[in-house]
Amino acid sequence: MKEQSFIPPSRMLMGPGPSDVSARVLEAMARPTIGHLDPQFISMMDEIKKLLQYTFITSNELTFAVSAPGMAGMECCFANLVEENDKVIICKNGFFGERMKENVERFGGIPVMVNDDWGQKIDLNKVEECLKENPDTKIVAFVHAETSTGALSDPKSLTELAHNYNCLSIVDTVTGLAGVPLKVDEWNIDAIYSGTQKCLSASPGLSPISFSEAAKEKIMSRKSKVKSWFLDLNLIMSYWEGEGGRSYHHTAPINALYGLHEALLILKEIGIENSWKKHMDNHLILRNGLEELGIEYLVKEEDRLPQLNSIFIPDGVDDLAARKRLLNDFNLEIGAGLGVLAGKIWRIGLMGQSSNKKNIEHCLDSIKQVI
Amino acid sequence: MKEQSFIPPSRMLMGPGPSDVSARVLEAMARPTIGHLDPQFISMMDEIKKLLQYTFITSNELTFAVSAPGMAGMECCFANLVEENDKVIICKNGFFGERMKENVERFGGIPVMVNDDWGQKIDLNKVEECLKENPDTKIVAFVHAETSTGALSDPKSLTELAHNYNCLSIVDTVTGLAGVPLKVDEWNIDAIYSGTQKCLSASPGLSPISFSEAAKEKIMSRKSKVKSWFLDLNLIMSYWEGEGGRSYHHTAPINALYGLHEALLILKEIGIENSWKKHMDNHLILRNGLEELGIEYLVKEEDRLPQLNSIFIPDGVDDLAARKRLLNDFNLEIGAGLGVLAGKIWRIGLMGQSSNKKNIEHCLDSIKQVI
Repeated sequence: MKEQSFIPPSRMLMGPGPSDVSARVLEAMARPTIGHLDPQFISMMDEIKKLLQYTFITSNELTFAVSAPGMAGMECCFANLVEENDKVIICKNGFFGERMKENVERFGGIPVMVNDDWGQKIDLNKVEECLKENPDTKIVAFVHAETSTGALSDPKSLTELAHNYNCLSIVDTVTGLAGVPLKVDEWNIDAIYSGTQKCLSASPGLSPISFSEAAKEKIMSRKSKVKSWFLDLNLIMSYWEGEGGRSYHHTAPINALYGLHEALLILKEIGIENSWKKHMDNHLILRNGLEELGIEYLVKEEDRLPQLNSIFIPDGVDDLAARKRLLNDFNLEIGAGLGVLAGKIWRIGLMGQSSNKKNIEHCLDSIKQVI
Repeated sequence: MKEQSFIPPSRMLMGPGPSDVSARVLEAMARPTIGHLDPQFISMMDEIKKLLQYTFITSNELTFAVSAPGMAGMECCFANLVEENDKVIICKNGFFGERMKENVERFGGIPVMVNDDWGQKIDLNKVEECLKENPDTKIVAFVHAETSTGALSDPKSLTELAHNYNCLSIVDTVTGLAGVPLKVDEWNIDAIYSGTQKCLSASPGLSPISFSEAAKEKIMSRKSKVKSWFLDLNLIMSYWEGEGGRSYHHTAPINALYGLHEALLILKEIGIENSWKKHMDNHLILRNGLEELGIEYLVKEEDRLPQLNSIFIPDGVDDLAARKRLLNDFNLEIGAGLGVLAGKIWRIGLMGQSSNKKNIEHCLDSIKQVI
C-alpha cells in the first residue's frame, strides 16, 4: 500500500453528480474547524437555513440540511412521515422510485406503485386512477427530476392531485433543485429533499430538506416513535430551530457546512431564476452539438431535464471502453446508464458549476473522438 | 441578513470535540472534488479501509466510514444487529448510554439497563449479575470512553463477559479511538463505532466502524430487513467491499473523505501506540497544572480518560460567564457539563492535534484568569 497524501486528478465532472466544485467552495471547506456549538457557527447555520429557504422558495420553518447525503434526506422524509400501515402511492419512472418503495416498506408502510416507463414523465391520469382505487392513501411520493433517466415531472400538478385526495406529497428533487423551476410554497409541497452535489455544486454529503406546516403537524402527532434516532425530526427540530442555545443532537459536519454556505451564496449572487435559465440555455447549446453528431436523446424534448442529458450510446460504440477513454485521455467524467438502461445510454450532466460553455465544448470535442 | 462568506474565528478547540484540525487535513479537504465512482477515488477508499484497520487494530473485512456523524455510526450498529424482541443489556454510566437505549427501542429490541453513576467506570459485577438474570440477552452494549464524564471502561473484560453468556458486544469508542489503547481483534469486539472529530482530528461528519465475522453473520442471517435503507450493511457491504466495480449505494462525501484519509495518514506516521502515549503524557502535564490551581477531577485517577478531563467548576465561578470569557477573550473552547453534570463540571479535551504543550499552556493560563 502506497502511503501518501491523496492528490486527486483534475476532472471535468459531467456525470449525474457530483458536479464541478468551484474554488470558492473548496477554499471555504479548508477554513479552520470551529465548535458546532460556537455562537459564530450557529449564526452560520441560521444563514444556511435562510439561504435554503431562498433556494426552495419557501418560508417553511423546518428547512435545513440533513448531516448526510441525499439518500439520508430521502430516508428522513419517509422515516418521519410514514407510520405502520400507512398507504403510500409511489410514482416510479426510474431508479429512485424503487428506493422510495424500499423506504416505505422498511418503515412499515404499504407501497402502492404507479409505473411509467424509464424516460417518461409521471402520468397524472394513472396517479389519479390509483388514488381513486386507494382512497385510504396517506402520501403520494415522486421524483421531480429523475437522475437515472433525465425526465422531468410536474410537482405542482402532482401535489395538487395529492391534496385533492387528502394526501401529503413527498418530492425528490436531488437533481432538480436550482436546475429547473421549483416553488415549494407556491406549489404547496409538503416534504422535499435534495443533495448538495448536483446543481448547487457543493461537495456531496449533505441533504437540504424542507417540510410544510401540514407535514410538521403529521410528524408531531405521530402515534409511534420515528424508527431512527439520527433522523427523528422531533429531535432535530430543537437542534436547528432552538432559540437561544440549541440542544445537542449530533456533531454537525462543520467544514462541509462551510462549503454549502458558500455554494448557496454563489447561487444567491446569480439569482435562482437566472440559475434555472442558465441551465436551460446551456442545455440547448449541448443539445445542438449532440444532434450535429447524430446523437439522440432518450427523453422527448418537452420532458427533458436541462441539467441531465440522457443520450443513446451510438451504434457500435463500446460503452465501457469509450467512457474509460473519456476519463483517462480527456479527464472527462460522464455517467453510465443505470438499471434497465445500463449499456444503452450515457448521462451527461450540466449541473451548477459544470454548466458552462467551456465544459460543453470540451465534452462535445471529446465525445466526437471516442464515437 | 449579512450575505458574505463565512470566515470562522481562530479557536483553540479543547472541548469534547471537534478537536483542532491540522493544516494538512484542511488542505486535503480543499482538493478538487472528483466522482465517487472514479477509479482513483475508489483506490483512496480502499486505502481508508486499510488505515482504519490499522487504527482499530483489526483485520475485519467490514471496516469503513459511515457517511454521517458518529451518532449515525451508533445507529448503524443497533439498526443492523438488533431485531424485534432482542434483549440488549446497556451499561449506562453517562449521557450516551441513554442514546443506546433509544436506539434499541426504536428498532424493536428490549433494553435492559445496568446503571452506574456518572463519572464511574462500568462495574463488571453488575453486568454479570444482569446477564445471569437475563439469560436470553443477545447483545451487551457499552461506551468505552464516556464523552459526557471522561470515564474509561474496559472493553476487553466487558466483551469477554458478553461472550461467556453468548452475547455480542457493541462498543462506542467515539472519544476513545486513537486516544487510549484499543485492540479490536485481540479483545474480540463484535461491533464498534467512532467519530472523526475527536482523537483523529479530522472534521466531523464521518463515523469509522468495524464488525467482526460473528457480527457480520448475525447481520446476514437477519429474519427481518434492517429498518434503515441508508444504514443497511447488507447494501453498504457491496459498496465498500465490491470487487471490480462497486454497486452504487449513495454518493460518498468526497472531500470529507479526503480529510479523513489525510488524518489517518498523520496518525499512522505518529504510530497508534505513540498516539496513546502522547495523550497520556499530555494529560499528566495538564493534570499537574490544574491541581496547582486547586482544581479537582470528577473521575478517580485510575479510570480517567487522558483525552477528556472532567473537572469540577471551582466554587463561586459562574459557569456560563467564565466559558464565554474563555471563548471571546482567549479564543479557547472548553466543554460544559451535560445532563446531571450541567453547571457542575467543565470538560477539557486533549484530543488528537489539540493534545500538545502549547494548547495546555494556553488553557492553564486562560483558566487561571477566569476563575
